[in-house]
Formats: sequence, structure tokens, C-alpha cells
Amino acid sequence: MRTGINHLFIPGPTNVPEAVRQAMNVPMQDQRAHDFGALTLGLFADLKKVFKTTTGHIVMLPGSGTGAWEAAITNTLNPGDRVLMARHGMFSNLWVEMAQRLGLDVDVIDLEWGAESPTADFARRLSDDKAHRIKAVFVTQNETATGVTSDVAATRRALDDANHPALLFADGVSSIASIDFRMDDWGVDLAVTGSQKGLMLPAGLGILGVSAKAMEAAKTSTMRRAYFELSDQIKNNATGYFPYTPPTQLFHGLRKSLDRIMAEGLENVFARHHRLASGVRAAVHAWGLQTAARDPAFASDTVTAIRTPDGVDARDVMRIGYDRYNCSFGSGLGPLMGKVFRIGHLGDLNEGMCLTAIALAELSLHAAGAKVTFGAGVAAAQTVYAATPTTAARLAAE
Amino acid sequence: MRTGINHLFIPGPTNVPEAVRQAMNVPMQDQRAHDFGALTLGLFADLKKVFKTTTGHIVMLPGSGTGAWEAAITNTLNPGDRVLMARHGMFSNLWVEMAQRLGLDVDVIDLEWGAESPTADFARRLSDDKAHRIKAVFVTQNETATGVTSDVAATRRALDDANHPALLFADGVSSIASIDFRMDDWGVDLAVTGSQKGLMLPAGLGILGVSAKAMEAAKTSTMRRAYFELSDQIKNNATGYFPYTPPTQLFHGLRKSLDRIMAEGLENVFARHHRLASGVRAAVHAWGLQTAARDPAFASDTVTAIRTPDGVDARDVMRIGYDRYNCSFGSGLGPLMGKVFRIGHLGDLNEGMCLTAIALAELSLHAAGAKVTFGAGVAAAQTVYAATPTTAARLAAE
Amino acid sequence: MRTGINHLFIPGPTNVPEAVRQAMNVPMQDQRAHDFGALTLGLFADLKKVFKTTTGHIVMLPGSGTGAWEAAITNTLNPGDRVLMARHGMFSNLWVEMAQRLGLDVDVIDLEWGAESPTADFARRLSDDKAHRIKAVFVTQNETATGVTSDVAATRRALDDANHPALLFADGVSSIASIDFRMDDWGVDLAVTGSQKGLMLPAGLGILGVSAKAMEAAKTSTMRRAYFELSDQIKNNATGYFPYTPPTQLFHGLRKSLDRIMAEGLENVFARHHRLASGVRAAVHAWGLQTAARDPAFASDTVTAIRTPDGVDARDVMRIGYDRYNCSFGSGLGPLMGKVFRIGHLGDLNEGMCLTAIALAELSLHAAGAKVTFGAGVAAAQTVYAATPTTAARLAAE
Amino acid sequence: MRTGINHLFIPGPTNVPEAVRQAMNVPMQDQRAHDFGALTLGLFADLKKVFKTTTGHIVMLPGSGTGAWEAAITNTLNPGDRVLMARHGMFSNLWVEMAQRLGLDVDVIDLEWGAESPTADFARRLSDDKAHRIKAVFVTQNETATGVTSDVAATRRALDDANHPALLFADGVSSIASIDFRMDDWGVDLAVTGSQKGLMLPAGLGILGVSAKAMEAAKTSTMRRAYFELSDQIKNNATGYFPYTPPTQLFHGLRKSLDRIMAEGLENVFARHHRLASGVRAAVHAWGLQTAARDPAFASDTVTAIRTPDGVDARDVMRIGYDRYNCSFGSGLGPLMGKVFRIGHLGDLNEGMCLTAIALAELSLHAAGAKVTFGAGVAAAQTVYAATPTTAARLAAE
Repeated sequence: MRTGINHLFIPGPTNVPEAVRQAMNVPMQDQRAHDFGALTLGLFADLKKVFKTTTGHIVMLPGSGTGAWEAAITNTLNPGDRVLMARHGMFSNLWVEMAQRLGLDVDVIDLEWGAESPTADFARRLSDDKAHRIKAVFVTQNETATGVTSDVAATRRALDDANHPALLFADGVSSIASIDFRMDDWGVDLAVTGSQKGLMLPAGLGILGVSAKAMEAAKTSTMRRAYFELSDQIKNNATGYFPYTPPTQLFHGLRKSLDRIMAEGLENVFARHHRLASGVRAAVHAWGLQTAARDPAFASDTVTAIRTPDGVDARDVMRIGYDRYNCSFGSGLGPLMGKVFRIGHLGDLNEGMCLTAIALAELSLHAAGAKVTFGAGVAAAQTVYAATPTTAARLAAE
Repeated sequence: MRTGINHLFIPGPTNVPEAVRQAMNVPMQDQRAHDFGALTLGLFADLKKVFKTTTGHIVMLPGSGTGAWEAAITNTLNPGDRVLMARHGMFSNLWVEMAQRLGLDVDVIDLEWGAESPTADFARRLSDDKAHRIKAVFVTQNETATGVTSDVAATRRALDDANHPALLFADGVSSIASIDFRMDDWGVDLAVTGSQKGLMLPAGLGILGVSAKAMEAAKTSTMRRAYFELSDQIKNNATGYFPYTPPTQLFHGLRKSLDRIMAEGLENVFARHHRLASGVRAAVHAWGLQTAARDPAFASDTVTAIRTPDGVDARDVMRIGYDRYNCSFGSGLGPLMGKVFRIGHLGDLNEGMCLTAIALAELSLHAAGAKVTFGAGVAAAQTVYAATPTTAARLAAE
Repeated sequence: MRTGINHLFIPGPTNVPEAVRQAMNVPMQDQRAHDFGALTLGLFADLKKVFKTTTGHIVMLPGSGTGAWEAAITNTLNPGDRVLMARHGMFSNLWVEMAQRLGLDVDVIDLEWGAESPTADFARRLSDDKAHRIKAVFVTQNETATGVTSDVAATRRALDDANHPALLFADGVSSIASIDFRMDDWGVDLAVTGSQKGLMLPAGLGILGVSAKAMEAAKTSTMRRAYFELSDQIKNNATGYFPYTPPTQLFHGLRKSLDRIMAEGLENVFARHHRLASGVRAAVHAWGLQTAARDPAFASDTVTAIRTPDGVDARDVMRIGYDRYNCSFGSGLGPLMGKVFRIGHLGDLNEGMCLTAIALAELSLHAAGAKVTFGAGVAAAQTVYAATPTTAARLAAE
Repeated sequence: MRTGINHLFIPGPTNVPEAVRQAMNVPMQDQRAHDFGALTLGLFADLKKVFKTTTGHIVMLPGSGTGAWEAAITNTLNPGDRVLMARHGMFSNLWVEMAQRLGLDVDVIDLEWGAESPTADFARRLSDDKAHRIKAVFVTQNETATGVTSDVAATRRALDDANHPALLFADGVSSIASIDFRMDDWGVDLAVTGSQKGLMLPAGLGILGVSAKAMEAAKTSTMRRAYFELSDQIKNNATGYFPYTPPTQLFHGLRKSLDRIMAEGLENVFARHHRLASGVRAAVHAWGLQTAARDPAFASDTVTAIRTPDGVDARDVMRIGYDRYNCSFGSGLGPLMGKVFRIGHLGDLNEGMCLTAIALAELSLHAAGAKVTFGAGVAAAQTVYAATPTTAARLAAE
């Protein structure tokens, strides 16, 4: 028996705005009706704005971000292709494992979990690869497991500096629509996200941005694929349809979610995420704790992984938060299990929600044995929030 | 453009639990179907448990608590009847005004807004009224405008001590289902509540507990009434029907809401409200501010009215909370306008929600010019919450 | 265990459109917020268009149409006032009873249930009433119990011809927003409807149109009232607020419902109701059965009451429809119980829904013992529908 | 501007029951919470009952039935494996194409679209295949495009008679939970369905039944796969979790949907589908039209494909149904385009809904130029329905 709302601070699925929930509560409909495109074509157009691409295609696959990862690989690469990847958290790790399963020859750079993408190392290897054996470079723009944002643009520069033709893959699952992502400017060929993060929907859609160069590669790619065949999608999407039954209710939610993002303004969305995240980081600092992010310059604006003090099991913090305070934090994953808990702060969020997360983290840390001064983190975040204008104020001032 | 949830801390309508919202999202149905009573009869039975009556009737009127007030009066009293009432806040004031409009001869005891119901004064007047001219005594169990709970049982004792036959009316709009109310034990004849407070529903139902003595009085009452005729309701309700179209969707919500109350246990619900309210009061104390409640012994467990410091307009606190932080506090009413703002803490609530209210009140007070130490109120409430077991823990321990 | 949708053909509550259901599924909100009027003021403005009044006020009372009836009477009349009413169905009968309870001196014209409002008789009595003892004339524009629409405009002409100052009351509960109603043109002083009929919402709002003349009468009316005090409402409504907690979720639904009515166009809404009703009436004729409406010229476009053949209990038809076919018809009321069942055909409706009602009525009539040729009524209605353009076609042609 | 409900008679997504819609309208939640298995483990258990397997595994993949098809193939077969398939409709055709894309050596038996699965031919080929080069046989239990149900059990007998070790694949997308399917009895190794058909949910889950023999084959299968890796799913599912973010809202809907199926009783569900389908087929016969199903013995209980008369384009029927009558029929696919339209009659359905489909088909056929007697099909179906007891009556009689 739980009372009150469930305070959801996992880094996805994120809190779905009321208007989006309303919009998804629809009866089923004929996805082959002649007016169906009136709903779907606008989604592709607006997703292009979110991905910041005018030259690429957007594809929405029924499934998850993981499926979109797979589609990105199987549509553009060939068995045995050499690819350059870094492993610095659970999700970059899972991407490596998928690439290996799918038969790629993965050149893995293993880093501390909490490090950012190794731009310099990438640059060196690309520069060394005169034979262009490397067919693709993968960057996890936001490592959800550690709360670290990496520099995709820098990897593009490394490619350009080396005059290297490899495809550039970017995992934007927990960044796109929350942290600036520029598909065209950065020359990203395969950009991947899911519906349940910055787009503020339930899980159910894997979404890709696919460059013209990627589609060119697809023409000769020999990996086996059917469900994830991008060219089938793109052909059907042209008139607003899909090769197999799509989750129409999510499209209605996505329509409303994109409306909200456009109404707030993408840059305002990013600024809000940064502002709210700054408050969370100030709280962690006030507690005298560390984030998993090695370098503060790469601390993520969508999720913060907090290291518990020695002797305090982060799983206790989470369990107490959930059982006593109806609050869901993200867990530490893999080697970070028990060592960190995570506060997701992306999507449909405001100051009050972040302060709730901080206040409940204080209660949970305390109960788990950590020496945390009640209210200290809250006060630090309040100081940040009081000093910077809200989105509402920014919009009003424009 | 608002982002994140609206933090709703008005003292009603209160936050509707998700399960209740789900349950209300139904298509319309035939309220005269032969199986309709299967839904409604259980509601009456469980509302009796909430009102703690086995001998009284429950009536659900389409309308609001205000309508239920009117029904209580017009069904049991006669034009010109003398009644005893106190005015110590906006809602007791409105009840006085209604009684006057409806033609009663109201003996009003005017008190400071923030005082509790004047039991001793009531006792004296009842004792003096040897002729039994007073036909009814009215007690506002919880003055929503000031955050003051009064002692209904003591008024019953005063009636008994004076051997006085007057009817006892109790306004339980913001107390019933949140603060202990004992219709039978206290000999309450007319108990009034609304759907949008402790019952955690939208507004739309005025709910009455009506004693056998009240129904006896109704037989000879000569006040004009039609819509609010209780005997019509009670006659139709016997088989689960209503004299005119009821809001069936609210009945589905009420079913779920009562299920939740019963699952938590009424006494646990009261304990939770007390515990959560104690945290809010600790925060007010930590800020160095006063509540509107004159005597801490009568401070309400469902709403706290907070006096702003001299020079700080409480309306600014509210406006800032709403415009900057998407947070709704209750306003000061009547003479308290600009002098207090209110935090409603009743219904479907938990620690995180109260801490949110406190943290956002700190931000809003600060921005409105009050000298409040960030985090001070939050820490005080956290200390209370950390020291006392949650409902979940209590239930687990049983 | 019921499967498939419940086919709801009662004359209210009517089927709520999906978009309206979506819109009502909102969390609670502060009904005193400074931007609340942005929602509510537009409702009053659009309801004026629905009532076709520019000079009158609209009032929305938490409650039902019955409550709005009471408000109409108690705000404008005085105890003992003589009023002219006809009784020709259950709802006109209930209105008579209410008027009597509220202390009016009712001049009742009793007619066969199935007759229309007795315009000529009204005219004669008004003309005879040189002393203007009659203070109000009541017309039930649509008698929901019998499926008979009466001529309100003719009663206005009768008043004018007699140069009589009586107020004109019109019950538009099951007509307004479905059948043409012209408050200003017809000089209606008190027009009453509810949310759960043509406005396609759940029950919960009684809605009044109040003329300037009615408000003038209200100034001197001495009937006791508080909850239903119209002047309180109108004063608060001016800025978008309400004297006590209104059902905000219904306002969101009403916003969407009015949007739909305006998008379809009021006159198109009326034409659609007439067209769909014509099909239902053609079916009844094809079955060889009679409607309760005495004169086909007054047959209602929102509900049809169908007389079962001798020896066939209409309650069996309803019970079979409900238990076997998950279909809800309206019952015969009062003296019509067992003699008629009703098909409500108002609100959010289309051809398919009417054909469903007819097809299931055929199955239910047959099972109840009536000699009805399967498909005969359906074919008759199909013939009507095939011969006349749909609303969609009409709109497309414009 | 459409009024009234959209009459949805496509063979999927099917109409979602209200209770299922309610259940899906939930906020997001932590899919890694320690109590998440309390929701999911029961789903696997009940799906086993629906698939009629006690020895197999159930897997729920975020995606569609098409994805489940792919998972079935890539987890159990090897590149170049010879498989036996028939092409007798669009969905069997798509399955053939997928198998070819995924690198299988497909032995395709091409049949008239409208034929059933060629059991005798399969038997002969299996019997001839002494070398056991055939690794799998595929049966489309219900060809959604033509409305033809095939005999899976007979194919099992053919395998057994030939003592052949090939895996048996069954496409039950539009049959499972609507038409009897017996995974264990029939020795099906890979059974595939989707959420949006008999399970009465939105699209979003591909669901597989996987035999122990299939999982044994998976151990040595060398097809590349990652997203669709069944062993990852099964390992995580054991405690109620998933390898990547699942669509939790669909799980809540599935819980309710399975509750409904269990409450009605699987055999009663099948009987209801048969009874309702019989009415539809009687209507087609009454119109003098043909179904696409070649042999009435194999006519599907979940969808009927109706051939339009010469000179009548089935696309006109559909367009008229949709544009004039807010009714969605299924289209003819591939070579059947323009020649058939389809009435889906599966999932949450009752007599009234089927009669609506028939009545609107009559109107639409008429308007498209077909000579159809109004009401003739309706009467034929009514005669069927009147002669056989409803599920409600059957349940009441038990």
C-alpha cells in the first residue's frame, strides 16, 4: 500500500507529461486509412528538427533504443567490418557486445567507467588507419550509467582531420531532445534514441537519424536483416505509412510531446536541463559526495550518478527510497552496482521535482548510514535555482 | 509553457491517486440498469465506515460540500429556528451566511480567525437555554481557511451535560477521511463532506451523514426544498438508485478511493496525516514563522496556514510559487488575504510531496522578500520523518 | 462477463466523445489560480452561442439539470406565485412536482403522456389572465420520457399576443445543443440544460440561460436559496471564478465538447440529429409499431419512445437487450413503464450507431415475443441514410 | 469532423476493451524495481495457458508480430537451412520474403490466395525428405489477408508420420487467443503472435511460444542476432525482468486483458468468435457474395475477406465506409487489392458490433454500386444470433 505519487527519478522511462498521457489514451485506428499520414508525416518533420538534420532520414521502429542500435549496425556495415568503440559504462559496454554478436571486428578502448569518450585516442587511431580499415566510429553521447556526456563534434573533427571516411555512430538515447545534438553539423551518420527519455513517452519506439551517406552504405551492406530494414521503412514512411503495424497510440503521444518541445523551444529545453542538473550537482557537492563522472566538464545534464560513501551500499539507498518514500532512483550497473545510485533529471521536469529527488536522497542516504546533513543538498540546489531564471521567466522576457 | 508536474498543495481539490483517475475514465452507463446497485450499494456501506456510523444514513448529492451544507439545514430545521454557530474562519463564516440566507436565527459567536470552536461558550449558552430555543449547534471540525481543528466530541458533551435536544451539525469537509471523525460516538446528526478532499476525488459530490434523529426532524421540517430532499435520496438509495442522474464516473472513482482507504486502514490514514502534518509544522517553526492556528493543540493535520512576516505579502508568495515553480498553494481568505498562504496536506500524500511543498515554499518566500534559510524547513521536516515510521513500515510491522 | 462495447442508447448520459474523455482525464488544479479564467471565460462565451443568447447570462451549477430547474424557480419567483405548466410526460411531471414543493401555485394542464405542450391552451389562459396573476409559463421543449418536442416559440407568441409579462421557462435538458433552441429570439427567460445530454459530458453540471428580465425578477424574489443563488455565480463568473469548488475536470471536457460543436457547426449538429432520428422513426414504422409521440409533427429528434405490441412487456425488451446484447435502451417511465422502451439518439452519434440500436432492438423485440421481421427496421433506416448526405458530405460540399 | 464512434473492423489492431485502456493509462515506473516481477511473472504464466503450453517458454519482445517472426527464425535456424513454406495470402507471402532475406533456402508452395495451408503437399515433401534437409515447416494458422484458417495439427501429424525432425513454426498472429491453438498438443516449436489482435492491446509486443526443442536448436544456431536473442530474454524473464526497457504500460494492459480472457474462459472465447463469425458469413451469403476463403471448411473465425461483385472496386467500399460512415474495414492486399474488403471480427466483440459492420457494409457496398438488398445481411446474421445462446447465456447456464 503506497500513498501519494511515485517519485520517479530513473533516467528513463521518464515522467510522461499529462498532456502526452491524455493524447495516448485513444482507441485503436486503421493504420492504413487514407488520412493516417496527416498524423505521421508531421512527426518525421518535427523529429528532424529535434535531431537537427535537414538532409537525413528519420526512422521510427517499433521496439526500443536497443533495436535502433541494431538497425544502425545491420543496415550499414558488413560482417567482419572493423569498428572503433570505447567502453566506459554499461550502455557503451552493451553496444560493444551487440557489435560483437553481430559479427563486427570491434576495436574496443576500455576506460574507467565514468570517463568520457576518448576523443584523442580515437583521433590517433583514425589518423593511423591510412588503409581505412575502420568502417565506423561509435560515440555514446550520454552514458546513462555514469552520467557522462561525450563530445560527438570532436570525434567528427578527428574524422575530418584524418580525412577518414568511416561512418560516425552516435548513441543519443539519453541525450537527444534534452542535450544539444546536431546531426548535420556534426556529420553523424547513425543517430539513435528511444521514445522513453527526452521525448517523454513510454518505451516502444526506437528512433534513428540516418544520413544520406549511411543510406548509401546500406545499399551494399550484406548483413542479414528484415524487421529492421531501414529502406522498407523509409519507402513506406514517404507517404506516412509503415511496413508493419506501428504503435499508433505512441504516435499520438509523440505528436503532443513534440508540440511541447517546440512550444518551449529546443534551446530552452537544453537550458532547463542544464539549470536543473546544476542544482542536483550542487547538492551532491554539498553532501561531500562524488559523482561517477570523472571530469566535471563532462557531467551529464540528464542523469547524475552519485557515489555513496565507503561502507554505504547504494542498493540500500535505493531500496529505502523505494520502500519507505515511494521514490525510484536509478541503480548502479555492472561494476558500479552498490557503489552508485542515479538521479535521472531529464524530460518533463521542474525545480520542485529536482528538490524532491534531493530531499528524498538525503533521507535515504541517512537511513542507509551515510553522514548527510539534512537539507544541505536542498539548500545548495535552491541557491542555484534562486539565482537563475526559470524557463517561464526566460520565455516571458523574450 | 509549464514543464514538469504541477505541485498541488491547495487544501482541495486534492491530488487524485492514479488508480482513482484510471477508475473514473469510463464510458457513460445506464444509471437505471438492473445491476447498477452492485456498484453503488457498496459505496454507501463503506462511507458509513468512514463516517463511523452504523445507525445513520449516507447521502451523496451531485454538487459540492456547500450543497450538502444546505441540504443539512433545509431538511431538518424550520424557518426562524435559532441555531448556535461560531465564526472563526472563512468556511465557518460562509456557513453562518448560508444559515442566515436560509432564514435561520443565527446566534453567532465571533472569534479571532485562527481560534478553534468555542466549546466552553457553547456549553454555557446551551446550559442557559432552558427553553431549548436553540435547535442546532454547528461545529466546523476543520476550518480549512485557518488550519484549525475543533473538538466535536466536546460539543456533544456540552449538549449532553445540558441535557439539550439541539441537533449537532459538523462540517467535516476537510477532515472526514483524513482526521478521526466519529459520527455515532459523538452523536453528530448532520455530518457534511465533499468528494474533493480526503476522499481524493474531483469535486462533484456533497456527502452527508444523517442520523436517525435528523431524519425524524426532517419529517416535520417545513423549509422548502426539492433538489436536496434527503428522503427522496434515501428512498431511492435503498436499492442503489438516485432520484436524478448522478455522476456515475465519480462513483467508480469513489469505489477505488474507498478501496485504498480500507486497504491502508482508516487509523493508518489518520496517523499518516498527523505524521506528514507534523513535518510541515516543524518546517514553519524552523522558518521562525507562525501558523494562523492560535493554539498549537488545535493545529490541523490536513492544512497549515502560514503567516508571512511583516512586509511580505502572502499573495506574492503564492504568485511566485505558481508562476516560477508550477506550485499551487492555498491563499489567505477574507481578512487573512495577503497575510497567510496555506499548504494543504491531505489526501493522497507522502513525505516527498510534503518536502516538495516546503522546499518550494522556501524558494517562494525568499523571492517574496522573507528571510528564510534555504533548506531549514526541509531539514526540520526530514528530522520528523526520519524519526517516525512510515505507513508502509507500520503496515509491514503488523 | 460482458464482451465488446456497451451499446448505450439511453437518452442521457449520452456517449462521451473520445476527445472529451481525453480532455477530462486531468489532475486536479487550483480553481483560484490567476489564469483559471483563461479556461472558464471561453466556456461562458461559447455556451451563449449554443443557447443563442447575446443578452442573457449563462450559469453552470455543480449538480444536475434538476438542480438547474430549482435554481430557475427559486431565483425568480416568490412563494405562492401562480405558474402555468403542462404535464405530458415524466419530466414535465417532475417539474410540476418540484414547483409545488417549492411553494408555487401551479396551474397544471394534464394531457396524455405523448402529447406536446398545449400552446393553444396556454394562449387562452394567458389571454384570460388580465390581472397577470400568472408569473411564469413553463415549456418542456423536449419531453425525454415520451420523445416529444414542443414549440417554445409558439408559447412566446402566445405571451406576446396576450401582452403578458409572465416569465418564460424552458426545459431544454434533452434538446439544447441537439435541437434548435433560440433563447433570445424566443424570449426565453430561464433556459435549463444539463451536461450529460447534447453537450456530451458526464452528469455533473446544471446549466442555465438567464435573461436580463429574469435577473431583474431575481432582485425582488423572496424564495430562500443559497447554493443556487444565481447572483453569486454571475458575480464570480465575471472574472472566471465560482463561489464554491466547481468540477474543473468537466470544464476541460466542456471546452473540447464545445470545440466539436463549433467545428461541426450548430446547424449541422441539428441537421445530423434530424437525419439520424428520421432513420430510427422509419425503422419503427417498418416494424409496424407506434411511437409514444401522439403527433408525428412533434416527434423528437433526440429520443424515440417505442410502444411495444400488446402482450409484449417493454421491460423484457430492455432486459434482453442489456443482458444478452450489452445494449442499454431507455425505459418507460411512470404510466409508460412496460409499455414503451426508448432509443436515445442524441449527442455524439452516427449512422452506424443508430443502425446498431435498431438491429439490437429487433433482436430484443423478437426475443421478447414481438413479431418483428429481422432486418426490416435496419433496411428502412438504411434507405433514409442512403438518400440523404452525411454531415461529412455536407461539410465537404460547402 | 467525424461524429460518433469510429467503427473499427480491421483485423488488427482490434478494439481495446475499456478496462484494458484504463489499465494502460499509468505513469511510468521503474522496470528494475524489486517488486516488478509481481506484475510480469503472472503474465508469462497466463500466456502459457493461452498458448496451451506447459513445457515451452513465452517471450514478449518490444516490437511487433513481424519482429517475433524474425526472432523465431534467427534463434533456431542456420543460414542456408532449407525450410518448407506455402504462399497463399499476403502474410504467408511476407513470411516467405523474410525467410529469404534472412538467408534461408525456402521451398515455397505457391497456391491461390484464399487456399488453406497445403497439408497433403507438406506431408508428401516431408515424407520424401529422407535426408532431413528440411529444417523447419511453417504454417500460417490464420491468413489474415484472406480469412483462411489452416490445420496446424495436421502438419504435426504429417511430421510425425514421416518421422521427420523439422521444427514446426506457426503464425498465430490473428488466431491465438481467438481460435483454438494448442502448442504442446500440436508440437509447435515456434508460435508467434502480437499484442494487437486476440489479446486486445495496442501494437507493441511480439509474443512467442518457444518449445524446449526450439531452445535446444538455439544453442547451435549461427544466425546473427542481438535484439531478438531469446536466451537473453528467457534468462532475464525468470525473475520477471527484461534485457532492455520493455513497454510497461502494455504489461498493465495485458494483465487486464488476460484477466478478461480467463474470466470468460478460453473455450468460451473461441465459441464466441465462431458464433459471431457465423453471423458475418451468413450475411455475405445473403448478399450473394463470395468470401476469399476457397473452402468454407477453412473460413476463419477472426476475419472474413469478402469479394466484391464484378465492376465494384472494393477500395470504393472501404473509402465510402470510412469517409461517410466512420467505419474502418480491412483492405484487400496485394493481388486482392480492389477485389476484396475485409471485416475483422476478433477480440473484444459482441453481436451489436458485428451487426454494425454488416449494416455499414451494406450501405457502403450499395453506394459503391453493388446490388445488395438493405437489411438482408443483417437479417441473416440476426437469425444466426437469435438461434444460438450468447456467451453470457452460456456462462449463466453453467
